[in-house]
Amino acid sequence: MCQLLGMNCATPTDITFSFRGFSQRAGITSDHSDGFGIAFFEDKACRLFVDNQSAVESPIAEFIRNYPIKSRNVIAHIRKATQGKITLENSHPFVRELWGRQWIFAHNGDLHHFHPRLSARFTPVGNTDSEWAFCYVLDQLVQRFGYVEPTLEQISEALTQIAPSIAEYGTFNFCLSNGQALFSYATSKLHWLVRAYPFKPARLIDLDVEVDFSTVTTVEDRVAIITTEPLTQNEAWTAYVPGELIVFKNGQPVQRSVTHVQRLKREQENPALIRKTKADQY
Amino acid sequence: MCQLLGMNCATPTDITFSFRGFSQRAGITSDHSDGFGIAFFEDKACRLFVDNQSAVESPIAEFIRNYPIKSRNVIAHIRKATQGKITLENSHPFVRELWGRQWIFAHNGDLHHFHPRLSARFTPVGNTDSEWAFCYVLDQLVQRFGYVEPTLEQISEALTQIAPSIAEYGTFNFCLSNGQALFSYATSKLHWLVRAYPFKPARLIDLDVEVDFSTVTTVEDRVAIITTEPLTQNEAWTAYVPGELIVFKNGQPVQRSVTHVQRLKREQENPALIRKTKADQY
Repeated sequence: MCQLLGMNCATPTDITFSFRGFSQRAGITSDHSDGFGIAFFEDKACRLFVDNQSAVESPIAEFIRNYPIKSRNVIAHIRKATQGKITLENSHPFVRELWGRQWIFAHNGDLHHFHPRLSARFTPVGNTDSEWAFCYVLDQLVQRFGYVEPTLEQISEALTQIAPSIAEYGTFNFCLSNGQALFSYATSKLHWLVRAYPFKPARLIDLDVEVDFSTVTTVEDRVAIITTEPLTQNEAWTAYVPGELIVFKNGQPVQRSVTHVQRLKREQENPALIRKTKADQY
Repeated sequence: MCQLLGMNCATPTDITFSFRGFSQRAGITSDHSDGFGIAFFEDKACRLFVDNQSAVESPIAEFIRNYPIKSRNVIAHIRKATQGKITLENSHPFVRELWGRQWIFAHNGDLHHFHPRLSARFTPVGNTDSEWAFCYVLDQLVQRFGYVEPTLEQISEALTQIAPSIAEYGTFNFCLSNGQALFSYATSKLHWLVRAYPFKPARLIDLDVEVDFSTVTTVEDRVAIITTEPLTQNEAWTAYVPGELIVFKNGQPVQRSVTHVQRLKREQENPALIRKTKADQY
């Protein structure tokens, strides 16, 4: 399985501390070594770095660990491919433009028999179920709102319907952002926390590194971190309830909702039917 | 004015030699220091690096100069902003997905009174005339071919109609690629050459660097370079004829055509009407 890392902040913040620990899992503390990607929003646009080398060995990842890029919305992904090619086109996060904004998506999990019809407005470049799901999510948003940009509340409400409908097909943990907010959803595993004033020291799990955030922050700072597995050993991480959608804005959750996921009956009745339908599931 | 650099190759090739010379123009041998960007295709996907720092000072540009990324289609841009903000969203090259491929576009020049209606299928993220032109080009392609991917010949033929229609509004030199070919067009200034067997030494104009390509290439290699101003002092560069569209594939021109550009009559009759209509023209 892959791992996700998201960050949503009240003020532009660099993610180097969290990314250093997270990227250790790409070959040192874990084996998610089949490529990585990270996207940093600046207003409506974003910088997206992807590589089909591991986040431990990639010169691009090394560059990111040492070059603090400040952003209010960041999504990163390290990959463990169990099937399919390790190519650039299959590397998360994926990007598309909608309503004059970049949209960024990364997925952890796998979907079975998931190949809904797409409108061709958004077409996968690679052959992962993840990018297909991303295109489907954006298609559904356009179907609901047309080309008049909806509010964040309307987008959140739509996602509480769209996400569970995809989760019927398997494991569906994701981070999605349009630069205004970070939408996150989990059916199996995702954790979050908020760092805010008064800040405290944090110690990484994957690397012998501690940062005392009280020495590098101001009262205005507030940072939400979303990750598959907790990154620090001395902070209180909250696990997502299965089916939970959390929308983060300005470094804090602004909406939390849990929706029931109805697994496909035929799979429950006959597990042999479960098969990977796309070349690359992670 | 900005400067463009494009590369189209028969085999994956790194652009570090050309980019080293080109990026000197971002503050050392010239003053195109208001941001840069470079996109490297890998099949249908691409890596896009953009920064609003100059290609001389940007750590990302320094990284690119030292990390040879092999690609068959590369487009780079260094920017000299005369108006408008130096922001990420206004940095070239721009990217969009169409027909399950990434499309990359960079523009040199400026367009006046150019604000055709867009379908909303492609919407500018920033506020440059360049990104508007890119969205218009893709809109026009969809209008002609719908969601059935046309051949390269059909795309080239369409561009011989679309490009001159935009060039009526000002200076329009561009490089465009979908990872299969590099489409280039010039109304004022663009040069090209092909390096092929038997390769020879090449000496940069902007930096005291010479490479003997015969020592680092094979018979199969063939590389077309497209650039605003020639990069080397001992190679034969060919200038584009105004209104010329050249399509490069496998490191060589596969189509060349020149179309007449009809400038807007009202501007010819009254130059005072010429004004920058977008915040950022370069």
